[in-house]
This record gives sequence, C-alpha cells and structure tokens, in this order.
Amino acid sequence: MTRENGGAGATDPAEDCAGSARRGRPRSEAAEQAIFDAAIGLLEGGTPLTEVSIEKIARTAGVGKATIYRRWPGKEELFVDLLRSVEPPDPVLPGDSVRGDLVVLMESIRRRGLAKRNSALLHNVFSQMQAYPKLWDTYHQVVIEPRRLLGLDLVRRGMALGEIRDDLDVELVNDLFTGPLLLRTVIRPGATLEPDLAERVVDAVLEGLRPRD
Amino acid sequence: MTRENGGAGATDPAEDCAGSARRGRPRSEAAEQAIFDAAIGLLEGGTPLTEVSIEKIARTAGVGKATIYRRWPGKEELFVDLLRSVEPPDPVLPGDSVRGDLVVLMESIRRRGLAKRNSALLHNVFSQMQAYPKLWDTYHQVVIEPRRLLGLDLVRRGMALGEIRDDLDVELVNDLFTGPLLLRTVIRPGATLEPDLAERVVDAVLEGLRPRD
Repeated sequence: MTRENGGAGATDPAEDCAGSARRGRPRSEAAEQAIFDAAIGLLEGGTPLTEVSIEKIARTAGVGKATIYRRWPGKEELFVDLLRSVEPPDPVLPGDSVRGDLVVLMESIRRRGLAKRNSALLHNVFSQMQAYPKLWDTYHQVVIEPRRLLGLDLVRRGMALGEIRDDLDVELVNDLFTGPLLLRTVIRPGATLEPDLAERVVDAVLEGLRPRD
Repeated sequence: MTRENGGAGATDPAEDCAGSARRGRPRSEAAEQAIFDAAIGLLEGGTPLTEVSIEKIARTAGVGKATIYRRWPGKEELFVDLLRSVEPPDPVLPGDSVRGDLVVLMESIRRRGLAKRNSALLHNVFSQMQAYPKLWDTYHQVVIEPRRLLGLDLVRRGMALGEIRDDLDVELVNDLFTGPLLLRTVIRPGATLEPDLAERVVDAVLEGLRPRD
C-alpha cells in the first residue's frame, strides 16, 4: 500500500511534494476510483488512448480538472497508475536461494502476462501503448525499469554467492531468464503460459542445453 | 527472389492463383515500386497506418485500384510485402553444426533489430502494428511463423544429433535462444545489440549458467 494518508481530514501528501510524480497518494480513494472509472469507461467506449484527455476524464468523472492535476502531473502518469492498479503487484523475493528468487521473479512476469490476456482494459491499453511513445516511456521508467533492476541485483547476488557463473555480463544473464518469459507474454499472444513455465525456464538456463553425461 | 515472372510480356502469375496471397509476384516491378513509394510517402507524411487505404495509395501512385488488387488481396498483404522489401532477407543456414546454425539464426534477429532502429519507416509501421490486429496477424502468419518453424526444425536436428538435450520441450528450447534476442530488438528499444550478441547468447544457453568446475 502506498496510500498513506487517505482520510478526509488528513493533509494532502501531494502538497508536500509539488512537482514530483505524486503517484498513488491521492487525497481520497473514492475520487481516484471515480477518475479511473471515467478513464476506463472512455477506453471501453472506444475512445483511442491518445484522445482520452484530462478534460474528458474530468467531465466523465464529474470532477474539476484541478482535482486530477492535484494527483497526477499529466495523463501519462494517470494511465500508468491505472495500469498498476489493474496489474498484479510486484513480487516480494523470499531471499532463500537465488534459484528460488529467480523462479518467483519469472513467475511474476508469467502472471502479468495472464492478467493482460484476461483483462480487456490491459489488453487495450498495451496494444495502443507502442504507438504512444510518451506513455510507453513513462510506463517504462516507472514500472519496467525498477523490475529490471530487481533482476540485475538478483543476478549479482547469484554471482557473489557462486550460484551463477561470474564470467558473463550481468545484463546478458538477466536477459537469458526474462527473455523467454517476455517473448511469450508480450510478443507472442497465443503462446502457452503453463503453471511451471517459470521453473522450467530458470532450471534450463541454469543447467544449460548440452546433453548431460 | 520470388519474382519469377517480371517481364511485361509474361503471363501474370497472379492470374494462376486467384484468391491466394499472390505475394511477391507482380506483373511489373516498376508498378510495385511506385505503389510501395506511395504507401511510404503517405506514412512519412503522417497518415496513420489504419487510414492509409488502397484508394489513397492508388491515387498517390497514379494507378487504378485494380492494379493494386491484382497484386494483393488487401492492404494488410501489401504492407507485409512492403515490410519484407525493407527488412533484411531470411537467413540461409549453412548446416555445418547446430551451434553454427543457431548463431546464424540469432544473428538474423539482431540484424532485423538494427534495421528497424535505422529505418524510420520500419520503426513507424512496427510501432503502429500492435494497435492494428489484422496487419499484426498477417505479418505474424506470413513472416514470423515460418521463421519460428525454422528454429524449431533446428532444435529438433540438434536433439537428434545429440548436440542439444532431448529431455526438454522443443518450443521451450527454441524460446530460450530467441527470447533474449527478441527482448532486445522488439521490447527494449534502448538495449545494446553488440556484434557478438548472437554468439554469446547461443553459447551461454548451451553451456548453462551454473559455475564451471
């Protein structure tokens, strides 16, 4: 939970960090939900992402534009928060073994892929996102990059503990694990996402594909 | 080369397979190029992909709509051919070793990624393609799926020859090689595409990431 101050009488935390992203710290959850519902309604009604303006959202939600701008600096940040409210949350790594943490991290990618397939909203927004560079950049910066750094840290830990070869580039090693999962969840819409996919990818990459003696 | 009959006096091969895709068998290369140039001009002029109609292309190229429909059943097929004319051609596998062929196949993905970064046209069309399901489906069916089958055949050959473990799913093994390449070329626009990337991915996946003794 990032909503630390939801009460009506509480000071709006957004006031304390004017100019920053202010993500997830609305004065009132009810207002935020009404704003999200309005944006979702517009998208479901067929309005292209690029034409869903703050003005249209405010009008549909029955709030003033200032109410929206108090929460988000622009519509890209609003959409990114909307996506995060629908997507599964980021995983917490148990920290027992590097292999175990890798499986948890890859499993979170698989689950997000399933969520995207099952949510018409997520599917709609992601399919339009590549043609909307500013939203893609914001989503990348706020959501994807922190997840990627989590993976890089894990690979470094594995190298330090002797669970992963340390003669390869950290970024490359991370991509060997995440690439197959992202290929099936992001690029190939019809690919199977079996329950044990994360585990099978992690073990195959760790053990290698040369025949065993 | 799929253009077997380009001469003005030759029988139009398209007439021989009415109703089929007729890809790459125009009566005249000059007319085809004029049609491609018209489509490119419209896209470069800022017309969204979904609004580039056969009618607009015909008018811009100075040809009749029938001239276009004689070559392609619809605009999706036209766009797919246009993309193929700009993208690097599919690789020919030397067939010496499975490892060598895997490197050639992965290198072809890297080269297509570089081409996409260096071509404003490819970048433009691919960024709009996800929001245009019919074009995405056609491109997938005509271009991506045959390439994927090439990879699956190669993995099966590796298993039969004892160069690749045969206790894993063929599709999974193929995704372990292609996933990291597609992650960097399709999903993460800023990723590095070093000249030896294909080789490093193939060898790391074959050898595995467990520390060597």
